[in-house]
Amino acid sequence: MLQSKYNHAMVVSLIANGFFMSEIDDTFTPLVRASSSALDSILGKKFPVLDDIGFLRCVDYMGTDDSIVQAARVSYGDGTKTPSDDETLIRYLVRHQHTTPLEMCVIKFHVKLPIFVARQWVRHRMSSMNEYSARYSVMKEEFYIPEVSEICVQSVDNKQGRGDVLESGAAICHGAMRDCSVNAFALYEDLLTYDVSREQARIILPLNTYTEFYWKIDLHNLFHFLKLRADSHAQYEIRMYAEVMLEIIKDWVPMAYGAFKDYVQDAETFSGPALALLKRLIHSEIDIITQEKSGLGKREYSDLMKVLG
Amino acid sequence: MLQSKYNHAMVVSLIANGFFMSEIDDTFTPLVRASSSALDSILGKKFPVLDDIGFLRCVDYMGTDDSIVQAARVSYGDGTKTPSDDETLIRYLVRHQHTTPLEMCVIKFHVKLPIFVARQWVRHRMSSMNEYSARYSVMKEEFYIPEVSEICVQSVDNKQGRGDVLESGAAICHGAMRDCSVNAFALYEDLLTYDVSREQARIILPLNTYTEFYWKIDLHNLFHFLKLRADSHAQYEIRMYAEVMLEIIKDWVPMAYGAFKDYVQDAETFSGPALALLKRLIHSEIDIITQEKSGLGKREYSDLMKVLG
Amino acid sequence: MLQSKYNHAMVVSLIANGFFMSEIDDTFTPLVRASSSALDSILGKKFPVLDDIGFLRCVDYMGTDDSIVQAARVSYGDGTKTPSDDETLIRYLVRHQHTTPLEMCVIKFHVKLPIFVARQWVRHRMSSMNEYSARYSVMKEEFYIPEVSEICVQSVDNKQGRGDVLESGAAICHGAMRDCSVNAFALYEDLLTYDVSREQARIILPLNTYTEFYWKIDLHNLFHFLKLRADSHAQYEIRMYAEVMLEIIKDWVPMAYGAFKDYVQDAETFSGPALALLKRLIHSEIDIITQEKSGLGKREYSDLMKVLG
Amino acid sequence: MLQSKYNHAMVVSLIANGFFMSEIDDTFTPLVRASSSALDSILGKKFPVLDDIGFLRCVDYMGTDDSIVQAARVSYGDGTKTPSDDETLIRYLVRHQHTTPLEMCVIKFHVKLPIFVARQWVRHRMSSMNEYSARYSVMKEEFYIPEVSEICVQSVDNKQGRGDVLESGAAICHGAMRDCSVNAFALYEDLLTYDVSREQARIILPLNTYTEFYWKIDLHNLFHFLKLRADSHAQYEIRMYAEVMLEIIKDWVPMAYGAFKDYVQDAETFSGPALALLKRLIHSEIDIITQEKSGLGKREYSDLMKVLG
Repeated sequence: MLQSKYNHAMVVSLIANGFFMSEIDDTFTPLVRASSSALDSILGKKFPVLDDIGFLRCVDYMGTDDSIVQAARVSYGDGTKTPSDDETLIRYLVRHQHTTPLEMCVIKFHVKLPIFVARQWVRHRMSSMNEYSARYSVMKEEFYIPEVSEICVQSVDNKQGRGDVLESGAAICHGAMRDCSVNAFALYEDLLTYDVSREQARIILPLNTYTEFYWKIDLHNLFHFLKLRADSHAQYEIRMYAEVMLEIIKDWVPMAYGAFKDYVQDAETFSGPALALLKRLIHSEIDIITQEKSGLGKREYSDLMKVLG
Repeated sequence: MLQSKYNHAMVVSLIANGFFMSEIDDTFTPLVRASSSALDSILGKKFPVLDDIGFLRCVDYMGTDDSIVQAARVSYGDGTKTPSDDETLIRYLVRHQHTTPLEMCVIKFHVKLPIFVARQWVRHRMSSMNEYSARYSVMKEEFYIPEVSEICVQSVDNKQGRGDVLESGAAICHGAMRDCSVNAFALYEDLLTYDVSREQARIILPLNTYTEFYWKIDLHNLFHFLKLRADSHAQYEIRMYAEVMLEIIKDWVPMAYGAFKDYVQDAETFSGPALALLKRLIHSEIDIITQEKSGLGKREYSDLMKVLG
Repeated sequence: MLQSKYNHAMVVSLIANGFFMSEIDDTFTPLVRASSSALDSILGKKFPVLDDIGFLRCVDYMGTDDSIVQAARVSYGDGTKTPSDDETLIRYLVRHQHTTPLEMCVIKFHVKLPIFVARQWVRHRMSSMNEYSARYSVMKEEFYIPEVSEICVQSVDNKQGRGDVLESGAAICHGAMRDCSVNAFALYEDLLTYDVSREQARIILPLNTYTEFYWKIDLHNLFHFLKLRADSHAQYEIRMYAEVMLEIIKDWVPMAYGAFKDYVQDAETFSGPALALLKRLIHSEIDIITQEKSGLGKREYSDLMKVLG
Repeated sequence: MLQSKYNHAMVVSLIANGFFMSEIDDTFTPLVRASSSALDSILGKKFPVLDDIGFLRCVDYMGTDDSIVQAARVSYGDGTKTPSDDETLIRYLVRHQHTTPLEMCVIKFHVKLPIFVARQWVRHRMSSMNEYSARYSVMKEEFYIPEVSEICVQSVDNKQGRGDVLESGAAICHGAMRDCSVNAFALYEDLLTYDVSREQARIILPLNTYTEFYWKIDLHNLFHFLKLRADSHAQYEIRMYAEVMLEIIKDWVPMAYGAFKDYVQDAETFSGPALALLKRLIHSEIDIITQEKSGLGKREYSDLMKVLG
């Protein structure tokens, strides 16, 4: 039984003779790649973001909710004698941050976006990116200016954010930002006319200049991206891209998306001290709530009750 | 022209109303995912490795040679006025280690392999793995013993490798290794009968015990894996898996595989001092060789001639 | 003012002349590397883990709590007009998972541990490891067997864990595990006597064989490791290593450790649905609690009150 | 001998009682962190790059050449009966791309650089970065303009590079680039005066605006950075930073630097087909060269002779 079927010399010879590929007997039926018909139906579609120039489109992907389940079940082997249904399993994984099975799903986007947004985007290191090069190619005169109605004052309580809409001067600011960008592109064209190298000429272009890239990321890391970038503290512009991605993810892997929404996006983490307070807060009413009335699953309810003492 | 098509409130409302997914007009034709018919035809097929237990099979993938080209061309934009054909471009990328476009191709394998091989495999960090858990599940009595004819002596000149076949005693060694493994599994069964926890009982199992995992990796990192593990200095057992993967890669992305073979597998790197020697060695004959006779492309020949002074 | 001090030719020339290194004027006082006297005092000390063989020792490190603060403040620049004290800043970072500044602290351990523990350890990819090689060197007869009093039954409710101590047969099991390991090492010695290659002979050694490695990791990734491996669901043996590391971290970066304890180790995350329940639970008592009585900082209290409606 | 020194309850108790930290007996002498006096003497020193604004300074580090050797030797264990000297070992590691021991050395820089350079820099994912945030803080009016004598034409043969110095119009281009940048900063100030949020106002700033960050990377990944960015195909501006780093590295880890120079920077890789050509080229003279005359070490010479048939 442990007798080797092939030894090394045999393998080399078999490979040389194309054995492996031709060994397929008549009865072998290949797997069909996991696919999502919902995602297939919008593959390549450009979803506009920010204005008429910015867009995001999904151009390729690998895996579905089933792939997450498959990867998780290999870990559990026969150990899961009472196999829960797929959705329960996926929710369990996300709730307990057992996220390696999510890495089995991969998605690739084609994105057109302002450089200042790309600068935030690229900080997500666990992904692959190929960007348009302003050293190789001439930049088109394409830039992003917030609409007059979206120019906002500096937030007072949030040092990194914007507050209310600018009450006076918004149109002036909008026009000035636009003129400044137009002038920079005009100089860029002039410099190229002088035959200044592209890599030098482009350095005076503004941060709102549009660039584009292909971007590939697995679902675990994409959820981390979306947690940060679809959050209300993220800059508005990158949030617009994140929100479109969320819609696409919802179609692609609906079970994983639902788990992400409940256990990550809508969740809150309470510190040890916060928990102590919580327990005091709820002490009086804990007895009259039951799992049936709680709307939670049995295990989550019981976990919560443990946490709340 | 720079007028925003949607503002934030509109986007939220559009998403809430399912706009993005339904916006697809009648004329939109979705992209079809890049696919390789050669790889599709063997998807899921178990290729035996080492013996009747070990195997490797490709279960999913994303991208083809075309995906590499697509990602590379976004960088070059209109800069590539004389677009070379796809294969030349891919060879250029691999030769110059511009490997980020290779990250756009992803492949997933299901592998059954001895634990001592898995221990070498897992050192490749830029990949995703979900392995069978001996804490959750009982290990089957499946282990690997080298055939009698493959038990080798310690190499004299290679401190980490094996030398010639063992001339005497191989059958004894083989039998003893087998008995030892059988005994370990017998104890494992006994311990489970005593109701010892699985996570404790398994610790006396040998390193040749079979495990299995799903493993996902992009093509750039897979080539790095294969460079090291299909090399003659790699341990024989992991090399057997690497060789089967090479056969699969050849079918999947033939252009990238060809470039990998020429510029990585069959290539040699010469240090600065080695180059100085080389130049002395060839000085006498350099004049009579021409690019036409060299078998190299124009650019590679000219680069080589520059290197050789 | 924007006049370049050096052009390219100058830089090359300056470097060639050793300028940069000699340019140090008499008044320059070099920085002294951030150091932790508490960690310095135990650098290299072997802390025993599991038995007389296993150990963990810290052999090098970079950075302290100050390094986290320094990296965070460069992001905030002059924006933090009311600079909070260092500890408050570090707690803010950890609470909001702004963990990149934690990456500026790095620690290196020398660890001796059973192979089955090393197999769990190595799954943490964002770290660097150099392990003893059984291809290069002979494995010493060193293995781990749980004490008689620590052999446990399979847990009933936790499929991956152990339950109570084995009531009968523990001594028999312990002895059998030990004999099995001794026998495997005896065979290993025999195989080497036959001159079987080390890389083949070692495959029958058990998973409880001791190995050792140097391991380097940054504080962000170490906290992730410790969150998982110092958790009660982690296997007992790896938890023992994690607990010793926690003690070392507490000495090294006391502020970051405190934040980790409160906001990660002792924290609980509530899903969207769980939060809805919580709000019902506490509704009756919310009015009578005040921030002053809560024991929480102003901002955390106000955040919590927002979450709790 | 295999008797546990501590069991779990004991460990918990010992930790609670501060045992581990106090266990240090009187005879224990802690290790002293590996340090480089050459690097210590310039720690924190600002090396100017590009102009009076740009700079790079090393602010912290971990490890030296010794740390590489230490990590490599744990792999080899007793297997290296004839331990070669440290420099030979380091050169062997670099030549054979056994680069994991290089990961044990870590260095941290503080860098001030134009945004277009930062955009190339950040593509190196295996590193840690904390950058000045233009959302939190106001950007200073600091930007980079190439000197008049360094404005170059587009390269004809290198689509991504610059060629000769611009013969006419350089002063005009320089002035126009400067005016454009000054105007952008003037608008930026105006927008802030209107109380436009910082995150919106900054989007019209040019790509030559100075930013700054702390950046931490291990030596393996730094060598990869330097291979690409100190190369003649890298953009001039990032190359200036890379060249200063090379000088610092040379002081810090002189053995590793020397190996990097010979085996990476000054090395050339020959493809399979190129090697075939090489063999033809040198066939006539191969016999008269000897290892002694070659200037190469024994092993490298013999490897080269094997490669050259």
